[in-house]
Amino acid sequence: MDVIQELRKKISAENLWSRDFKIKRNEYLLREGEIEKYIYFIEEGSIRAYVSNEEEEYIIRFGYKNSIITALDSFFSGKPSRLNLQAIKQCRIRAVRKEDFNALIQKSPENTRLYQFVLEQLIVQQMEREMDILTVLPVDRYKRVQERSPHLFQEIPNKHIASYLRMTPETLSRLKKS
Amino acid sequence: MDVIQELRKKISAENLWSRDFKIKRNEYLLREGEIEKYIYFIEEGSIRAYVSNEEEEYIIRFGYKNSIITALDSFFSGKPSRLNLQAIKQCRIRAVRKEDFNALIQKSPENTRLYQFVLEQLIVQQMEREMDILTVLPVDRYKRVQERSPHLFQEIPNKHIASYLRMTPETLSRLKKS
Repeated sequence: MDVIQELRKKISAENLWSRDFKIKRNEYLLREGEIEKYIYFIEEGSIRAYVSNEEEEYIIRFGYKNSIITALDSFFSGKPSRLNLQAIKQCRIRAVRKEDFNALIQKSPENTRLYQFVLEQLIVQQMEREMDILTVLPVDRYKRVQERSPHLFQEIPNKHIASYLRMTPETLSRLKKS
Repeated sequence: MDVIQELRKKISAENLWSRDFKIKRNEYLLREGEIEKYIYFIEEGSIRAYVSNEEEEYIIRFGYKNSIITALDSFFSGKPSRLNLQAIKQCRIRAVRKEDFNALIQKSPENTRLYQFVLEQLIVQQMEREMDILTVLPVDRYKRVQERSPHLFQEIPNKHIASYLRMTPETLSRLKKS
């Protein structure tokens, strides 16, 4: 079962899309310090979620075509987000307001179960991501991610993949060739 | 609201505890390759969750007194776990069977909401943890965790904290003194 597509169907059936728009490459859906009011469905394009401190940017997550993304920290807490959500390519996005989404989730036990399943999947993905980052050798990090998320290498430019995998673009190029 | 204590009360009220036992230091609640059938409430003691590969162990999480722990990957999927759950000190544990827990969660919208809240908190904690690990300087990693989880430094021996923070025990000792 593709829970994301199930959710999308339900949102369409209830007419809950509040925005449908395009953003260009490098534009932002949300910037650090803002409060998240939406869940975004990526119809076309891709998004990166990153945090920045004085020295560096850390990419936390990518959003792909046919997936969802939101600034989760702020979405759950209602407080300003630590995240930046930026388009890597031109994107077409449909957005649902948080209140509308939450009302939909509570509307039936089936919807609640669907959302619970999305949360559980996310937790497992985050565990995998934690193990990725903790893996010391670049070649092992590369292999783990290539096995689990082959679409990453189709959809995301090398420099962002390299940042996500904590290696230089040169190391990534070398690993891709070998 | 402390959702863990709310859950504990509900489990007691419904008489759902299926096991109440002690384990000694270094003993396991669950080992890699096993299937998780329980959620564990830690009444006394502390637990570490780690994954191992040929070269190293990576500590993913600690379970403290008055918190819950389980091998989440297997708990959600029903498949063998990648995790090891090991006692750091002698522990007293109460366990609920997964089926009993899931039935409790579905018993009322309030219970469902409580569980959803636990999952959301966990996702935010995992995001913080990801940012911890990505933080390059040991001193910055130390400060982040010290601020967010001061109890860690009371309850967990240095060598495990050092492993969790990806630094040597010597570096951790130096940072604690400075």
